[in-house]
Amino acid sequence: MKRIVLIRHGESIWNKKNIFTGWTDVKLSKKGIKEAKNAGKLLKKNNFTFNYAYTSFLKRAIHTLWEILYKLDLVWIKTKKTWKLNERHYGNLQGLNKEKTSKKYGKEKVLQWRRSYTIKPPQITYEDKKFPGNEIKYKKLNKEEIPLGESLLDTYNRVIPYWKNKIIPKINKNLSIIIVAHGNSLRALIKYLDKISDEKIIKLNIPTGIPLIYEFKNDLKVKNKFYLK
Amino acid sequence: MKRIVLIRHGESIWNKKNIFTGWTDVKLSKKGIKEAKNAGKLLKKNNFTFNYAYTSFLKRAIHTLWEILYKLDLVWIKTKKTWKLNERHYGNLQGLNKEKTSKKYGKEKVLQWRRSYTIKPPQITYEDKKFPGNEIKYKKLNKEEIPLGESLLDTYNRVIPYWKNKIIPKINKNLSIIIVAHGNSLRALIKYLDKISDEKIIKLNIPTGIPLIYEFKNDLKVKNKFYLK
Repeated sequence: MKRIVLIRHGESIWNKKNIFTGWTDVKLSKKGIKEAKNAGKLLKKNNFTFNYAYTSFLKRAIHTLWEILYKLDLVWIKTKKTWKLNERHYGNLQGLNKEKTSKKYGKEKVLQWRRSYTIKPPQITYEDKKFPGNEIKYKKLNKEEIPLGESLLDTYNRVIPYWKNKIIPKINKNLSIIIVAHGNSLRALIKYLDKISDEKIIKLNIPTGIPLIYEFKNDLKVKNKFYLK
Repeated sequence: MKRIVLIRHGESIWNKKNIFTGWTDVKLSKKGIKEAKNAGKLLKKNNFTFNYAYTSFLKRAIHTLWEILYKLDLVWIKTKKTWKLNERHYGNLQGLNKEKTSKKYGKEKVLQWRRSYTIKPPQITYEDKKFPGNEIKYKKLNKEEIPLGESLLDTYNRVIPYWKNKIIPKINKNLSIIIVAHGNSLRALIKYLDKISDEKIIKLNIPTGIPLIYEFKNDLKVKNKFYLK
């Protein structure tokens, strides 16, 4: 049976402080590390095993993956890290506390940014020190492909081609895959897999550190999905 | 300037107990984790950075690499794990305490196994439950290429072709490489790089968790080497 396991990284120190994080590379909180370890234990208890892992370029996801693989005694498996699975880039909101942002821009505007599928957050500029192109890990990318602030649709438009072109061929080779990513990159993938509407996807909440299992038919249509608890 | 950094993994729980380890996949001791973190701090303090990492299939090396990359804020870099950089396979000695082995086989025999460049340790068989081919991580290898017990020469004969065919092309592309491996896989590499005799290499001790820097001339001849302390 073809199957994948999706996991949202454990709680980060900015999840905890209620700050827009996006591509800001913050670490896991202590609780987040615990969540990651628990995910690993749970997968082990249920006899899951993997021979290929995907994760983003962000340490909260990579660290979560490491804790899981360590528990599963699978630290040696191939791991592909890609910015395509990064969190939604939150533009100029990154680093702002969500309450303060509401005060600054108005509650409704912030709700719109958070709850609309297509509206982009305030953009950063190429000159901004927050521009990812300044970071060594994004140096290889073309300037044009580096986001300045994404709607969930923008995130979808980088995640789904990656899914189709890179991950599906691996599933078709019968690799057992685990993907550790982020609230919005996973939302994008789940939207695609479950054919969820623009309105509904934005309200979908994905808990941190809980393995979400997708089982596929041979044609890769979803046969079954469930959280491992 | 072309350069690589070699590091022997931190102390493992079997280093501590003086047991022949080889390919047995034991974890780092608490001291070993600390050594790994210190190596990371030291590299950071000296402004080292990397964009490609090599390590073995064994968790004591992988975990050491992870701790180093975490300290350097480089968890996202490409990491190639390969059995070719594994520790020397110690055959039937694996799992035996070094003192007890001396009592069982005689001191001289054990010294010979440990101090000879070409003498193999007592071999395991394909039927042995210790045979690496029984482990999922070596399942892809041809039965013939899986060692049953290696002399240091045997280890050399898998490490150096890997160095020449896989790692050197990466150095020539000017990647900044860190290699976290094992006492004997690193000994093999150092023998090759420094043209050390069979007699002398076997006595060379490589400390755990101390970065060993090699600087190369353009033709990849060694220009300079030093431990970072």
